[in-house]
Parts: sequence; structure tokens; C-alpha cells
Amino acid sequence: MLPDNQSTPLRMGLIGGGGAGFIGKVHATAATLDNRAVIVAGALSSDPQRSRDSASMFGIDPARAYGSYRELIEGELKLPADQRVSFVSIATPNHTHAPIAIAALKAGLHVICDKPMTTGLDEADQVVAAAEESGRVFALTHNYSGYPMMRQARQMIAEGDLGEIIAVRANYVQGWMHGMDATQTPQRGAWKSDPTLNGQAGSLGDVGTHAFHLAGFVTGLKPESLLCRMQSYSEHHQLDDYGHALLQLDGGATGLITWSQVTHGRLNDLSIEIDGTKAALTWRQEEPNQLFVRSLGRPTQIYERNPNADYSTSQAVDACRLPGGHPEAFFEAFANVYSNAFDDILEIDCGESVDRHSTIYPSVYDGRDGVRFMDRCLQSNQNQSSWQSW
Amino acid sequence: MLPDNQSTPLRMGLIGGGGAGFIGKVHATAATLDNRAVIVAGALSSDPQRSRDSASMFGIDPARAYGSYRELIEGELKLPADQRVSFVSIATPNHTHAPIAIAALKAGLHVICDKPMTTGLDEADQVVAAAEESGRVFALTHNYSGYPMMRQARQMIAEGDLGEIIAVRANYVQGWMHGMDATQTPQRGAWKSDPTLNGQAGSLGDVGTHAFHLAGFVTGLKPESLLCRMQSYSEHHQLDDYGHALLQLDGGATGLITWSQVTHGRLNDLSIEIDGTKAALTWRQEEPNQLFVRSLGRPTQIYERNPNADYSTSQAVDACRLPGGHPEAFFEAFANVYSNAFDDILEIDCGESVDRHSTIYPSVYDGRDGVRFMDRCLQSNQNQSSWQSW
Amino acid sequence: MLPDNQSTPLRMGLIGGGGAGFIGKVHATAATLDNRAVIVAGALSSDPQRSRDSASMFGIDPARAYGSYRELIEGELKLPADQRVSFVSIATPNHTHAPIAIAALKAGLHVICDKPMTTGLDEADQVVAAAEESGRVFALTHNYSGYPMMRQARQMIAEGDLGEIIAVRANYVQGWMHGMDATQTPQRGAWKSDPTLNGQAGSLGDVGTHAFHLAGFVTGLKPESLLCRMQSYSEHHQLDDYGHALLQLDGGATGLITWSQVTHGRLNDLSIEIDGTKAALTWRQEEPNQLFVRSLGRPTQIYERNPNADYSTSQAVDACRLPGGHPEAFFEAFANVYSNAFDDILEIDCGESVDRHSTIYPSVYDGRDGVRFMDRCLQSNQNQSSWQSW
Amino acid sequence: MLPDNQSTPLRMGLIGGGGAGFIGKVHATAATLDNRAVIVAGALSSDPQRSRDSASMFGIDPARAYGSYRELIEGELKLPADQRVSFVSIATPNHTHAPIAIAALKAGLHVICDKPMTTGLDEADQVVAAAEESGRVFALTHNYSGYPMMRQARQMIAEGDLGEIIAVRANYVQGWMHGMDATQTPQRGAWKSDPTLNGQAGSLGDVGTHAFHLAGFVTGLKPESLLCRMQSYSEHHQLDDYGHALLQLDGGATGLITWSQVTHGRLNDLSIEIDGTKAALTWRQEEPNQLFVRSLGRPTQIYERNPNADYSTSQAVDACRLPGGHPEAFFEAFANVYSNAFDDILEIDCGESVDRHSTIYPSVYDGRDGVRFMDRCLQSNQNQSSWQSW
Repeated sequence: MLPDNQSTPLRMGLIGGGGAGFIGKVHATAATLDNRAVIVAGALSSDPQRSRDSASMFGIDPARAYGSYRELIEGELKLPADQRVSFVSIATPNHTHAPIAIAALKAGLHVICDKPMTTGLDEADQVVAAAEESGRVFALTHNYSGYPMMRQARQMIAEGDLGEIIAVRANYVQGWMHGMDATQTPQRGAWKSDPTLNGQAGSLGDVGTHAFHLAGFVTGLKPESLLCRMQSYSEHHQLDDYGHALLQLDGGATGLITWSQVTHGRLNDLSIEIDGTKAALTWRQEEPNQLFVRSLGRPTQIYERNPNADYSTSQAVDACRLPGGHPEAFFEAFANVYSNAFDDILEIDCGESVDRHSTIYPSVYDGRDGVRFMDRCLQSNQNQSSWQSW
Repeated sequence: MLPDNQSTPLRMGLIGGGGAGFIGKVHATAATLDNRAVIVAGALSSDPQRSRDSASMFGIDPARAYGSYRELIEGELKLPADQRVSFVSIATPNHTHAPIAIAALKAGLHVICDKPMTTGLDEADQVVAAAEESGRVFALTHNYSGYPMMRQARQMIAEGDLGEIIAVRANYVQGWMHGMDATQTPQRGAWKSDPTLNGQAGSLGDVGTHAFHLAGFVTGLKPESLLCRMQSYSEHHQLDDYGHALLQLDGGATGLITWSQVTHGRLNDLSIEIDGTKAALTWRQEEPNQLFVRSLGRPTQIYERNPNADYSTSQAVDACRLPGGHPEAFFEAFANVYSNAFDDILEIDCGESVDRHSTIYPSVYDGRDGVRFMDRCLQSNQNQSSWQSW
Repeated sequence: MLPDNQSTPLRMGLIGGGGAGFIGKVHATAATLDNRAVIVAGALSSDPQRSRDSASMFGIDPARAYGSYRELIEGELKLPADQRVSFVSIATPNHTHAPIAIAALKAGLHVICDKPMTTGLDEADQVVAAAEESGRVFALTHNYSGYPMMRQARQMIAEGDLGEIIAVRANYVQGWMHGMDATQTPQRGAWKSDPTLNGQAGSLGDVGTHAFHLAGFVTGLKPESLLCRMQSYSEHHQLDDYGHALLQLDGGATGLITWSQVTHGRLNDLSIEIDGTKAALTWRQEEPNQLFVRSLGRPTQIYERNPNADYSTSQAVDACRLPGGHPEAFFEAFANVYSNAFDDILEIDCGESVDRHSTIYPSVYDGRDGVRFMDRCLQSNQNQSSWQSW
Repeated sequence: MLPDNQSTPLRMGLIGGGGAGFIGKVHATAATLDNRAVIVAGALSSDPQRSRDSASMFGIDPARAYGSYRELIEGELKLPADQRVSFVSIATPNHTHAPIAIAALKAGLHVICDKPMTTGLDEADQVVAAAEESGRVFALTHNYSGYPMMRQARQMIAEGDLGEIIAVRANYVQGWMHGMDATQTPQRGAWKSDPTLNGQAGSLGDVGTHAFHLAGFVTGLKPESLLCRMQSYSEHHQLDDYGHALLQLDGGATGLITWSQVTHGRLNDLSIEIDGTKAALTWRQEEPNQLFVRSLGRPTQIYERNPNADYSTSQAVDACRLPGGHPEAFFEAFANVYSNAFDDILEIDCGESVDRHSTIYPSVYDGRDGVRFMDRCLQSNQNQSSWQSW
């Protein structure tokens, strides 16, 4: 549904998403779920022919199905401002995020980018600089922060319902890597095992950064230092596929980030547990409509995603599309990141300014923090799991 | 995503959905989730002014925001065939379904209608006749049948994995009616308590028919006879809000349908349990991505909605948009009913014929069965819960 | 642990329990769990030799291993009062409960009897009369009422926490009957299929009566009338193995009792759901330490079996042996029925009187109600599921 | 029930258990659950008067209610061998375990001792030496290893069902420490905060050692090195109440042990997750009858504690007392440790020898490993979470 602040859909350009992976389709569906955006242009594959062939599936006019992101930017800039794409979504392998994002920002386009933001810290700094100079929106799709119950948790913690946070444990556990076969034609996610395309962080970058982001998103705490141990257990894989990072957080809280892509039979099991001096929370992504709230001596309370419940916080309510009991899930959470970014795009396009440091959607600074997390974990792991300052 | 069989979105007219309720927005989101339809016209409220005011929210051109369903049909018929709506979605109070559906079918439009199909059997027969005469698609949004795991269950049963079905228990339990207040301005669902708008069936029609449909959808069994006892416990309500129907099914199986809208704190708790001679199944709508399969002496098995798993049936795979562990939920299930209807609309529009009796989406005959279920339950309840033949 | 009101263990005689079944061992373990009783005599099998052979397993002196219940009563009466058994536990097939119980009561022994109390109403009346005349304790091991969370539920309801009760649904679902093989030597529970040993009620008596008792235990409501439909689906079985009973309860509440022993893969799945005008409860025997309490607009609350929690009622606390989170289970619940009966035995043995109608353990009147429930269900089922007055 | 290898109950002396804590009663109930032991003597409190006063509750003859463990040993040795206690159970504060155990072993008594075995490594070595010299049974009540599903997991892993183990995560999370109040009279567990009684390890010793033991019990893997970070968040507490230990295990597997007693509202939440190259397992102590087994591409399987299921391993079956669905819990698991120790006591008392290194119950070597784990964690934590070799 179009909200009050918007009269027509935003025009979107999709970069990547034309291959065998599912993340491009997720961006497309999430961006258009509320009819707030329409995909009008695409550079869907690094293979120009595949890029054009995929366009029809996304309903893109062949004339705006470009062979590369450079062509897309160049072609769109030639169009009148009221036809040109307003923003691009970047759903390409990790090592290309930085050049694409920087080029788009410099062209005056807003950017919504998949994570991790870049494969190295230098590039991350460059993207931050480009975003700041451009005055455009830059949003990173740490989509799990879009779940209403994670918004609920964040707000409850910000309002002091948990007291002081003493510990957070975020776990992201999958098992699909056991199904990879190095002798077969590359399949979905194959590039994730290739350091030249993916960066040095394997599962650390693919899922660990999501868990790390979520821990910070919900608690508001940043690391002071961390140590990491990671391993590579899969025989078809050069990078880490299992790891733990231990964090000393602001004010003395303890953080633990666990990631695995080699835990048999686990699908997409991101979970988080947060301990405060007054109460504690737990949540699982695979059952996203419930948040468990516990306090000594009181019954465990199951908070439902329920826009009509008095206990629901305003940020949770804003993130709901359906009444309680009518479950919302992955697409809606992903769409919430888009929708929040759209609000800022509309503000900026109207000449208003936006505080880039306090967005509810993951920002370019969150993106740099994620890259720093990967960097520090890699450093620690190479140095016998020694502590690294943040 | 547009599938191979479709090159441009279908044009949709939305009837109803402009009020305080959420079901109109659900139809809009579900119909457009995959970009296979676009809403181009609406008659969104029985109040013409509200109808026009609501149009912008749905992105409808004011010129095609009509004051009534009659105006919509009349106006659209004046447009060239390649601009005219292809189908209408009916999301109005129950007593208006029949006249709207019949008028739309007679105008050559395909119809997607909310449930229950009508408030009485005579009207149901008239809708069946109109659908048959029109040659158009008629789909009923018993949306819970759109969940991939219900498709999985249906196919497993059809293929004999459960052996002979001996019993099915379907329960639809809510509690929101405890929040109604007769002294306040009508709120969402207030018409559901008014027999002139809703029909004689209260919760029976609102949720009981969903449970009844799901039991038949999954097992393929029809009642031979039934008995029912229902009550009205809420003080703000004239119609039934709690009931049980006991069914003798084809071949001697036992059915039990339970419905409640007065069970405190339950949100939208539709669940189903099916017992066969070889295995048994359970499923809950609020955790829709899991289907529990049990067989004596074997571990309980949790089948996940997972298009990549070998155990997933073809109908379940076809109903998935995301990999396992990335939960899908209410919108996607609702959208599956739409998407299946779209396939038939495309077939018919190409001059192909469709077997109206074997659609995976709920048909006009399923609609009539639902109305018959209400009728027989009301009869039984008025006659001391005596058995009624089907 | 011996409580304050008891200085030495009570002396117990066990009748039945020497065969392949497990229920005799359950009585033995439950009765002695707290060291409040010691088994000193037994008539463990209808086969005198097996009876004597089994005695050592229960730690029974061979001199007090009797060949029949008659011999046991006769033999024990010859012993000095301070050596003689104080009570007998009856764990024999159903058709023998009445004669054994009546003989024991007439001999001045307290009786703890397995359920159902008898196979017919006349016998049930005779047991009631014998109990009343004897002045002895008669307790029936509807053991599920011994779970702390069922005590909690009962007390919460009695104290009005749920408001007025409008509906109760009790389900007892097993699947083991699919494993029976009529061609094999009788196995555990084989007598349960034989009407001459078990009575006319099959699963109705075996599990249905447990569910019926629990519904009444927790809500305090009695039926005014009921109807029943039951079936026999297992080919190796002459009696009902699946059924539903619909109850009109005191004051207009609706009851539903469901039983099955042919639901594949379900082990011992007794569950109960209770709807009140202020709140609703759910509980499952297989996860007995949690009670779910729900109220419109509030988070679902999980009450834990936790003697240190303020929310725990006194009856729940009295039924606990361990702190919260240290799970208690089947034996402890069974032992609570024993322990409550022991308190009354001690009272009576001290010359105090006990109100036989208000015991927390299931009484002889509860036993008669259970037999009446079976009788009425059988009547209704034979009369086309017509309503039977209580 | 007395098993075939035992004709009369063993005679037990209980040391500790007379105070406000519950662990003494747990030992008493667990030891006698199967009627394989009877408590005949006690030194129940370090306060001689309280020791004698508590005796009656345990059914101990006042003549054998001793004022101290020394008196108990001395007094019992004066009795004829066929009256004397066969074994003592030690349920006292940690710092007394070693002197009591050593004295008992030297007196020729078998010993069942609570954990952690000692508060320091030197003492642990002394207990090992005393056990070896004595030839008596020494069992440590790491009771969670007594759960049937942990036996199932151990055996499945030993038989290769999980392939090679690559990772194990064991978490023991409680929250009761938030309820402590330093201004009040000492309550249950107060000594656990006092380093002179408890040793330097706080929650590490109280719960962390349980998690560590369970990880080794199930996987059979030992640490090669570890690092630890722990904190003290509770203001009423001098010792650690929260910690993580990261372990490099035999053959390169990764271990993580997490402990907390400051996680609000968590009761006794011990859980374990084990990843192998062929399958993965998860289990939670608070729902002990289920073991979740997962393998890529297959449905999640819930193994039930079920002695009649073909999938149950022999060690799981041996640890069951009830059919599946009749839940067993804490007492039964604790009793399994006792029962396994009883088997060895009977062997040794018959002159047989027992391989002290391959017992299914936790051995004196497991006890020393637990103390080493505490020692290494304390060392690492004091040295900036550096790696410590095992």
C-alpha cells in the first residue's frame, strides 16, 4: 500500500540477480511488496546476454535491460529525471559492491546494497566517503533487522526494559555446505567459496556478519575488542565455514558470535539471546513472529508480532502489515529495510535532510562495522585467537 | 517474478477493501506479490466517496475508482479489451458476494472471491451456474490451502503415503471476540456479528468454513453426514462463536471441525491433524513452514518447506518462492491461490479449456460445499445436534 | 522424604503387576518414591506361580507372595496389626477391580485402585457403597491429575483466574494399536482388546476416561448430557479405538473429549485446553512442566512447575519435589496421587475423619463418574450419537 | 525394581543433605528410586544437632545419625560387615569432597560424590590415587549424563552415525543469581558464592563443569587446549557468574562451553549441540525425552526416549523405566548414575574387577578432568583469555 508520504512508486534499477541465486528475486519482491517501487531497469548479470534475457522475468523493458552496471548508469542518466531510476539495488558478488555503489552514488542515485558491504576496509572507507559526499541514501540489506520482533527488542532495550545489557549471544547456523560438490558445475553460492570473488571471509562474511549486525542493532552496543577462532571443515571449500568470535562490548558486556555453514540439517537458523540486568530476550529467525521475554520469578512471556497488542512497541507496529497470528516472514522483513530506506529517499528527494547515523535501516556505517568485524576476526584467527582492539 | 507462461501483468479490479478491515489489502498484496497482476480499477467501498478516496493507496487511477461494483463493471466494459480489467477480486461482506460475482461473470470477467462464497445455498447454486455458463475462472480464497506444506500434505495423501485416511481433526481457534464492545463505533469485523450482513453463521462462516475446506482439500474426503453443536458465549454477539461439527466422511473416516473466536489469547490458530493407516500428519498455520509426519516406531519427522529437499512433493515445490529456512507465510500462501488462478486465466484467455473440478485453487464447487457445510451445521444445531445427511 | 505427619513407611500390598505390563512397576515406584510406603506383600499375577516368582523383583518376602488376592487378604489378616499391610494397590485387568476392591475394603484395608474403577455401573455403585461403609480410603489412580501444573490449573480456575469456564477440550491420543498383531502371542495390553476382561469400552476406557477425569478435575464441571461417536479402525481389535464425546457441562459450557489409540506415532499425547471468560489454558502431558496461560492482548505466559515462583499456587507447590527447570514427570505425578492418599490414610488411622467428596486425589465418586461416562458414551454410540442425559 | 544381579538393597550412608539445599534429597530419592539401595546412616550436616534432627526425614535410625563424616565412618566400621554401609554419597560443599571421599575410600567404602570433585587439581590427584588404591567404586554425579537421550547420543556417535565430530556447543544457562540478596541470611546456594567453600570457580564450577562433562561424555573428545573469558555481573557475588570457554578438541574439532547464572528467567537450561560430518544432534535438559537428529536434505527427526523403538540404542533402552510418551526426567537420570554405579559395586563386592576407565557413569578421571577444566579456565581468564594447553 502506498503510504501517505508517497503518491507514485519509486523507479528502481536492479544490478545482479540474473543468475541461479535467489537473492536478486528477493530484492525484487521485497522492493515492490508494498507497491512503493517498480523495477524499470536492470543490469542483471555480468554476462550481458544473460542480463538481457533475464529482464522479462522482472518485467523490465528490453530497452532498459543493460549489459553492465556502467551501461545502466550511463543509460539512465540520459533519461529525463522523471523517468530515470531513483535508486539501484546491488545484488552482486561481494567484491563488486564497492565499485558499483561508488559509481551509482557519484551519479546521484540512491543505493540499496547487499551485505557484506565490501571485502576490505579500504573499500569500505571509500563507500562511506562516497555516500557522505553524495548526500544520497545508502542502505545495506541486513534484512534480519527488518523483522518486527527485532524492532520490538531494539526498542524495549533502548527504553530500558531489560536494564543494563550484560551479554548477547548471536548464532547463525546453516548446513548447506555439506551438499557442495567440487567436481560439479558451479551452483548457487559457488562464488562464496572463491576468495577472489567473496573476499577472505567465508561463512564469516556470508552469515557471521548478519549475526554481528543483529547483535549491535538490537543492543546498541559496539565492540571494544574481540577474539576469533574459525575453521574450515568442508572439503570443498577454501574459506572458513565455522567460527566463534568473543567480544568485549561497550561497558563490559560480553558478546559471542557463532557461525556455521556445516551444521547438518540446519537451514537458516539465526538466533539471538540477550541478557539484561532486569530481563532477558530470545528470538529465532525461523519462527520470527515470537519474541521470548523472561524475568526471574515471572512466567516466560511470548510476545507476538501483533500490531494491535498494547505491549507492541511503535517500531514493531510500524513494521507490521498483518494482524497477529497471520504470520509475516522473510519477504516482509526484507521489505521493511526497503520501506524505511524509501522514506529517506522521499525525504531527500523533497530536499529534506536525513541523519545518516540514526537510521533504523542498516547504514553505510553499519556496513563499515561489518567489514571491520570481518577484518578483526581474520586478524585474530591468524594470530592464535588473540584479542584485537576494535 | 513473471513465469514463462506470462509476458505482462494481468489487470485487476478490486471490489471492497476500502474500509478498516485488512482483507482488501491482503488481496492487493497477494495478487501483486509476483508482479503477475496490477490493480488498475477499484470499487473499494459501499460508500462511493470512501471508495474514491481509498483508490490512491492502492495506486488506482482516479478515473477508474468507481462508486460501486455495478459502475466498475459498466465502466470497464466501455474500455478497450486490452485495457479493461481481466478479473475482479471480491473482498466485501458475505451477503454481497453472490450478486457481485454473478454480475462480473456475466460481464465476462474472471472472479476471485473471498469466502464464504455466499450466505445461503440457493445463492451458491446461482454462483455455480453463473460460473459454469461464463466459462470464466472462479476462485475462492480459502487461502490456507495455499501454504506449501498443505500442498505437500495433500499430495502425500493422494499418493498413498498415509495409507487409508481414518480420521481428520481441523481446528480454527481465535480469541479476538473478547475484545469487542457493543457500545463502541463499529470496528473491524463488526459486520461479522450482524446476521443481515454476515448470514446466520457467525464464527462457523468466518473460520469454521476455512477449517472444513482445509480438511477436504488435504484429504480429498467429503462428508456423508454431520452433526453440530454450537454456542454463543460472547455477550456482544448474536451469532455462534464456538462450535464443533462431527462428520462421517466418505468410506467411514471420522471428521471433527472445531471453531472458536472466544478462546482467550489465541490469534489465528488453525491446525489440522490427519490419521492414516500408515502414517499421521499435523500442521499449524502459525508455524506454517513445518509439517510433522509420524509413524509408529519411527522418529517424528519434521518436513520443512524446502524446495531443494528430495522429500518435497512437486506441488509443494511449485508453491515455494524461497529456500528452506527462509520462512514464507500468510501473504505467500494467499498469493499462491492467486497465482494458480492466474495460470487458469491465462489458459482460458488463450482459448484453452480448464477442468473446473480439479483445480488446486478452491473452486466454485468448494465454495458451494462450504455453504452447504454452514447450512447443515445450522440445521443440526437447531435440531438438537442430530445427524444431517450431506 | 518422610513428611512431618509420618514417622514410618506405610505397608503396602500389591495386587497385579507381575505380568508383562508396566503399570504394576509404576505403582510400586510411585508408592515408594518418597519412602512413605514399603511393599511388603503381593499377589502379583492371576497365575500363582508367576505371582511368587515376581515377588523378589519387588523386594517382597516369599512368605508374603500370595497366589491370589483372596489369599493375600486372608494371609495378611492373620498377621499382627503392626505387620499387616495397611493398604492394597490394585493393578489388575479392569473386570477384577470391583471384587478385589470390595474384598479389601471389607477386610478393613485402604485401597488404591487403577482406572477405570469397574467395567459397569452396578459394580461401580457397589464399590462406592463398600468404600462408604468401610470408612477406608479409596483412591483411583487417574495419575495425570497428579501433575503439579494440573493442580495449578485447577486452583487457578477455582480461584476465578479464568473467569467463567465456557469450554474444555481434552484429547488423549496414542498410536500403539497399529503395532498389534492378532496372530502373535498376547503381548502387553492384549487383554485391553478383549471385552470379557476389559469391558465394552476399548480406548474409551483405557484413555478416554483419563481425559474425561482430567477435564472435570481441572474445571470442576460435570456433564448434564453427552453424545458420542466412536469407531474401531484397527483390524486386530474388537472394541472402539477412536472416539469423540461432546458434552454439555454445568452452566452451559461445552466439553469435548477425544480419544485415539490409532494415531500413528503419537505416544501418550494427553492434552487439555480450557477456555474461560477471562483467560485460557493449555497443557500437554508429554511436556508436563509447562502450563500455557493466554489472555486477549497480553503475551502468552508459560507458567513453569516452579515451587519458588510467586505465581505458583499452593497446590502446585505441594506437588513439587524439585526446583523449576529440574523436570519432574510421570512417576512424580503418579506418586502425588499416592502421597495425597497416604495423608488421608494417616488421618484415618489416627482416628480422624476425611471428607471423601473433596479429596484432591481421585475418589470413589470420580471412579463412578468415569464408569458412567463410559456407559453413556456406549449408549449414545449405539443410538446414533443421540444425546444421553447424565 | 531389583534387577537380576541383585537380591537385596545396598546400604547407603548419606553425607550432607541436611540443610536448606535440595541436592541431598535428590541423592536420597535417586539412590532409592529402584529399591536397589536403602539409606541406613547419615552425617547430614556440618552442624551435628541439625544432622541428627534431619535423620528422621530420611528414615535413618537415630543411632546411625552421625555428627560428622568422621564419626560416620568410624561408627559404621564398628558394625558387622552385613550391616555396615556399603557406600557413602557425598552431597556437601565442594571444598569438603576430597577429604571425605579419601577417608571413605580408605575405609573400604564405595563412594558416590557430587561434582565438582574437588576445588583444586592437587586434591583431585589425591582422590584419583585414593580411588585407585582402594579398589572401590568412585562415581561422580554428573547426573545429566544419566538421561537416556544422552546415552543414545553417545552411542550413536560412538557407532559412527554422525561421522566425524567437528564441533560441539554445550550451554548451561540459569538466572537464579539475580534473586540473591547479600543483605539476607544465607539461603540455598549461598556457599556457592564463597571462595573458601566453593573454590575459585563460581558458575564455572557449579554449572560449567556439567556442560563440559556432558560434551566429553557424548562425543568422547578431550581438549588439547582451551581459552576462557568469564565475568562477574551479579553484585552479590564474588566469583564468575558468566563465561565462555573455547576448546580445541582431539583431532581438530571445535568446542564451546557457555555458562551463566545471570540470564533472567532461565531455570536450568542445559543444552548441547553436536555437529558431525554425517549428521548433527541437539538436546535440551528441560525437554529431556527428545533428541533432535538432523542431516542435510532429510527431515529433522525427533528421537523419543522410547525403549520399544527400533531406533533406540541399547544404552538408551537400559536407561529407561517407562514406555515412550510417559516422560522420565531429572530423578530418573540421576538414578541412572546411581544404578550404573550399583552394578559395579555388586561386581566388586563379588570379587570381580571393573575397568575404571570405561564406566558409563562419570569416573574419578572424569572428576579430575572437570577440575582441570576449571583450573585451565581460571588460568586463561587471568591471562587475557590466552590459550592454555590441557
